[in-house]
Amino acid sequence: MIVALAGGVGGAKLAQGLSHAMSAQELAIVVNTGDDFEHLGLSVSPDIDTVVYTLAGLANPVTGWGLAGESWSFMAALGRLGGETWFRLGDGDLATHVARTRLLAQGTPLSEITRRFGEALGVGATILPASDDPVRTFVSTEEGELAFQPYFVGRQCEPRCLGLTYRHAEAARPAPLRGRPWTDHPISGAVLCPSNPYLSIAPILAIPAVRAWMERRTFPVVAVSPILEGRAVKGPAAKIMRELGQEPSALGVARFYAGLVDAFVIDRSDAALADSIRALGMEPVVTDIVMRDLADRERLAREILALPLLAARR
Amino acid sequence: MIVALAGGVGGAKLAQGLSHAMSAQELAIVVNTGDDFEHLGLSVSPDIDTVVYTLAGLANPVTGWGLAGESWSFMAALGRLGGETWFRLGDGDLATHVARTRLLAQGTPLSEITRRFGEALGVGATILPASDDPVRTFVSTEEGELAFQPYFVGRQCEPRCLGLTYRHAEAARPAPLRGRPWTDHPISGAVLCPSNPYLSIAPILAIPAVRAWMERRTFPVVAVSPILEGRAVKGPAAKIMRELGQEPSALGVARFYAGLVDAFVIDRSDAALADSIRALGMEPVVTDIVMRDLADRERLAREILALPLLAARR
Repeated sequence: MIVALAGGVGGAKLAQGLSHAMSAQELAIVVNTGDDFEHLGLSVSPDIDTVVYTLAGLANPVTGWGLAGESWSFMAALGRLGGETWFRLGDGDLATHVARTRLLAQGTPLSEITRRFGEALGVGATILPASDDPVRTFVSTEEGELAFQPYFVGRQCEPRCLGLTYRHAEAARPAPLRGRPWTDHPISGAVLCPSNPYLSIAPILAIPAVRAWMERRTFPVVAVSPILEGRAVKGPAAKIMRELGQEPSALGVARFYAGLVDAFVIDRSDAALADSIRALGMEPVVTDIVMRDLADRERLAREILALPLLAARR
Repeated sequence: MIVALAGGVGGAKLAQGLSHAMSAQELAIVVNTGDDFEHLGLSVSPDIDTVVYTLAGLANPVTGWGLAGESWSFMAALGRLGGETWFRLGDGDLATHVARTRLLAQGTPLSEITRRFGEALGVGATILPASDDPVRTFVSTEEGELAFQPYFVGRQCEPRCLGLTYRHAEAARPAPLRGRPWTDHPISGAVLCPSNPYLSIAPILAIPAVRAWMERRTFPVVAVSPILEGRAVKGPAAKIMRELGQEPSALGVARFYAGLVDAFVIDRSDAALADSIRALGMEPVVTDIVMRDLADRERLAREILALPLLAARR
């Protein structure tokens, strides 16, 4: 089994590539829940949905979130009633939130709900939340502490980020996978998808049992940079790294992962960083990391799986 | 002030007519909540919504419920996820249920929510639930007792109805209207709209303070038959009356209202029933009661408001 840790769009793309490049049954995609929140009384899990929709071939290719061909009658009607419209929920997407909220209220764990939804949508790989226990990212800004979505969507990451907190992570346990914590399975390796290290990967690593799983690992870990040429492929990673005093580059991300990662995949345009990455104790892997289409995703996934440190164990 | 008691489609049509035939500010439309239920974790109030949508000019003219020009992405996506699809909720309509559910969870009374929604949609007349306390219609059938919507929508009223119960009605209080129970306002008269007497009007009358308000009234009450020529204008009224051993006719409805109503409006096609209705102690009023368009609704409303027993007091 390969475990892939993923956040939203970039993570979902590589996760989809992996699900095509290997036996989907041997792939477990562990997804960030730090972005999850309650909105309009509904339990919204943006990263899980992005991964599920992407692997189901239903994702909106333009927005990167939500469903392709989505309609917006709900939002229009909600606005007419004076409801909150800052966080946009499409009509079809809403079914996911309504069904999830209902199942959660009935006591069904998020991992089981995610499993059912993936199965219903024909996804072969296992997708699971990092934890069934709530982990919630909060952003300390110069305007005070903001919950993640009001910061990310409501304010478009505009307030300067001073720090991040992953609330409740200390008490969270890894979600179950076939009867035991996902961190308890023997695996051939782990892949950190090209997701925002602070917003997508760190909330997963903030779970003590996950951190221990990484630190005491006997399996190889490969990470893919979400940043190339000093800019995030998508999203605010570079801006946040700059505000946190980190170098907003693939090297900055590599420093963040130092000690946890054995090989670090960077873009050809960043080839000059290879030596600095090697100096951090990671094997630099230089290739094309921008995934424009499914062929790109699958090609990058195959290259990762073919890395000697992973291939030797599969 | 005129108080109109209404259920779903037929009631909403006459309520709209009344709102055009008189000063909307002097009209209070009290709506059945016996059909309300929790579905998919959402609080659904079908009759309130039908009345609000109809008066806002947003009602679906074909189905009689829901919004005109509705889209159905939510139901399609919910079905894809394996969710319950027997009760159809349109994408735009869903905003009403999500917003209502959230406000109820925050402690906002249904009457205040309904007032806000009416205002947001530009409805001039006051629309309010009969009670902010839950009243729930249950149907005793030969297959056992069914909650209203599983009977009405789920089973399309197919199981033979043996009796009706309006649960919690005994403990329900009339909803507030401008600071006091709607039954405490001095009024010029009341109109029982052409709604199903058992399913729409009886749940309102089952509230003890409403029953007392009717029995001790000093104002005139006019009822409009929802049945003509032995068939319901819409819905299962005739079938249910037959199953309950009542005559499925305007006369049967008049008998149901005997003692509570001063004038009873029937269709020209039922003119032969006038004497029997008079014998029940009600003034028969014979006119065209089928409301095909807004002109019909307004004309019927004007005829009702012009009845001497009402006109004399306004």
